[in-house]
Amino acid sequence: MDDAVPTEKASGSLAKGEQTRTLILETALRLFQERGYDKTTMRAIASEAGVSVGNAYYYFKSKEHLIQGFYDRIGEAHAAAVQDVLARETDLAARLEGVLLAWLDIAAPYHEFAAQFFKNAADPNSPLSPFSPESEEPREATVELHRQVLAGSKAALVPELRELMPQLMWLHQMGIVLYWVFDRTEDCERTRRLVQRSSPMVARAIDLSRYRLLRPLAREVADILHDFILPAAGMAAERAPATARRKTRRKKD
Amino acid sequence: MDDAVPTEKASGSLAKGEQTRTLILETALRLFQERGYDKTTMRAIASEAGVSVGNAYYYFKSKEHLIQGFYDRIGEAHAAAVQDVLARETDLAARLEGVLLAWLDIAAPYHEFAAQFFKNAADPNSPLSPFSPESEEPREATVELHRQVLAGSKAALVPELRELMPQLMWLHQMGIVLYWVFDRTEDCERTRRLVQRSSPMVARAIDLSRYRLLRPLAREVADILHDFILPAAGMAAERAPATARRKTRRKKD
Repeated sequence: MDDAVPTEKASGSLAKGEQTRTLILETALRLFQERGYDKTTMRAIASEAGVSVGNAYYYFKSKEHLIQGFYDRIGEAHAAAVQDVLARETDLAARLEGVLLAWLDIAAPYHEFAAQFFKNAADPNSPLSPFSPESEEPREATVELHRQVLAGSKAALVPELRELMPQLMWLHQMGIVLYWVFDRTEDCERTRRLVQRSSPMVARAIDLSRYRLLRPLAREVADILHDFILPAAGMAAERAPATARRKTRRKKD
Repeated sequence: MDDAVPTEKASGSLAKGEQTRTLILETALRLFQERGYDKTTMRAIASEAGVSVGNAYYYFKSKEHLIQGFYDRIGEAHAAAVQDVLARETDLAARLEGVLLAWLDIAAPYHEFAAQFFKNAADPNSPLSPFSPESEEPREATVELHRQVLAGSKAALVPELRELMPQLMWLHQMGIVLYWVFDRTEDCERTRRLVQRSSPMVARAIDLSRYRLLRPLAREVADILHDFILPAAGMAAERAPATARRKTRRKKD
């Protein structure tokens, strides 16, 4: 049965395939949470989901792809959840706060898993790090979301920061996520308050970047981001074994 | 032999004890690097160092204490290495750059170990995280060092930021350390350039905090640091098992 992968004829419909994919993903998340990511095998996931190992591998090439699938899913749910606040609010701080609080709502069911999984994502050599080449897609999607947060607001931005500001806002969001992973308060109340406090601060910093007095600092921040922080993903890739690098390249072709 | 712990009579001199301590610490670091931190036992460390297990436990109560001993050692070497630059320079950016470059020099032999060990230190529940209650001593020592960096410079600081600025500078240093862990360039050249670029930026931000226009932002940053970032250590401790918390409390008594 292991090599029985669904074909259009076998699965009948795309919806069926999507259902199986979701079933495998949800089973995997549950097992990761119960047994730990490192100790959970693809075989165990397939068995628990009631599908063949070949079928599981058809949908997800590896455990890492399962996590990437999980990242994608959270990202998609988040993008859908923020449409309302982005259509309603024009104030930058309110837009930013709405987007970040929506993320906390979406991610809430996975908080325990995130705390336990954090070790893996924090490893600079892991493809599961938010800075890795493999995470480029969800990273870009989040940067794009912050571009919308900015574009729909009344905030005036100096041209030289227009490109980099959404990337800085992504970094801010990563800081919030990091804080959330640490947070042990009920319903992550503390992280929610941090979002409510840091969103006006970010909006104020963006607003201040218009002033001539601050241009040199804004330029230094932008240059450091551009020259050092953003290429960090490439640095992590440099260390990856040659086979992993080849795989990444092929993926991009 | 396992219960043969050195007494004054047995070891003869404090210097002898210090030598044994150093021998155990260096052996441990070597084994951690060769076999991985998780897989190295105290028994193996004692055996490789040629001391009894009881003797090893006399100097270091656990593997975690070995890492804390390692942090202390780097901190002491760093404090000694910066005396020269702090006596010579009065420009804030130059003082900061000198202090951070000195840290990179001191830590260079442990770069490979740091990259491999990072997983453990990044775990929010680990006493080995730089934010943990157990890391309070080396953290405070570094904040104090940055207090000196500021105090001996010509930089004017508004009173409300005098207390918090050295803590922000500690956070900046943690950012540099994080970058260094990722860095795969020869002799960590890229991190050295980041230090040379970010030190003037930090000095400029400190200088700008004098201006009235920036006071509200500076106050927001200070408040968030004070209310959210610095108590993060306590948050991590909340999750630690009760026994670990009792130990920490006893240590503080």
